[in-house]
Amino acid sequence: MSEELSLIDDLDRIIHEPARLKIMTHLYIVEQGDFIYLMHQTGLTRGNLSTHMSKLEEAGYIEVIKEFVDRKPLTMLRLTSKGREAFQNYRRNMSQVMRALE
Amino acid sequence: MSEELSLIDDLDRIIHEPARLKIMTHLYIVEQGDFIYLMHQTGLTRGNLSTHMSKLEEAGYIEVIKEFVDRKPLTMLRLTSKGREAFQNYRRNMSQVMRALE
Repeated sequence: MSEELSLIDDLDRIIHEPARLKIMTHLYIVEQGDFIYLMHQTGLTRGNLSTHMSKLEEAGYIEVIKEFVDRKPLTMLRLTSKGREAFQNYRRNMSQVMRALE
Repeated sequence: MSEELSLIDDLDRIIHEPARLKIMTHLYIVEQGDFIYLMHQTGLTRGNLSTHMSKLEEAGYIEVIKEFVDRKPLTMLRLTSKGREAFQNYRRNMSQVMRALE
């Protein structure tokens, strides 16, 4: 198998899925964001964001913190260091594939 | 929605799927290849490659040519100009997302 194809094989499937790629990209930039804001930013429905949030939390890539602000419930999503590292790996691999094709 | 997230939304889902990304990457480099060789190059099973080949053919991204060489059946896969253009768009969008995160 050529190097580019091995790199594609190594791409983290948890991150590669488009909805999760959007969530991870956003959190990589802003570090943390609340659920409603993230819904608007990503254009995902509540149900979709919720499902992908759980998957990312299970993988240990994000932390989900539920708190109350002014007595209103707030769900905060934050990238973990494991998630940051996984995302950087993904970015490195993907960039290498893209560059190889220039 | 931020620019990076819009670019992720625009990524061609037909190409983004990892098995098809491998097939398209390979065909982008070599222009055409036969089924058996592609199986070995991508590490896909016969059934998997066959399924993804059909999906790419339906999208008009590849041509599938069946011929006989020395009386042996040969299935050739070739990137169409539509497929080449779609792949270049994908690469451009994905590179832009990756660069924005550097």
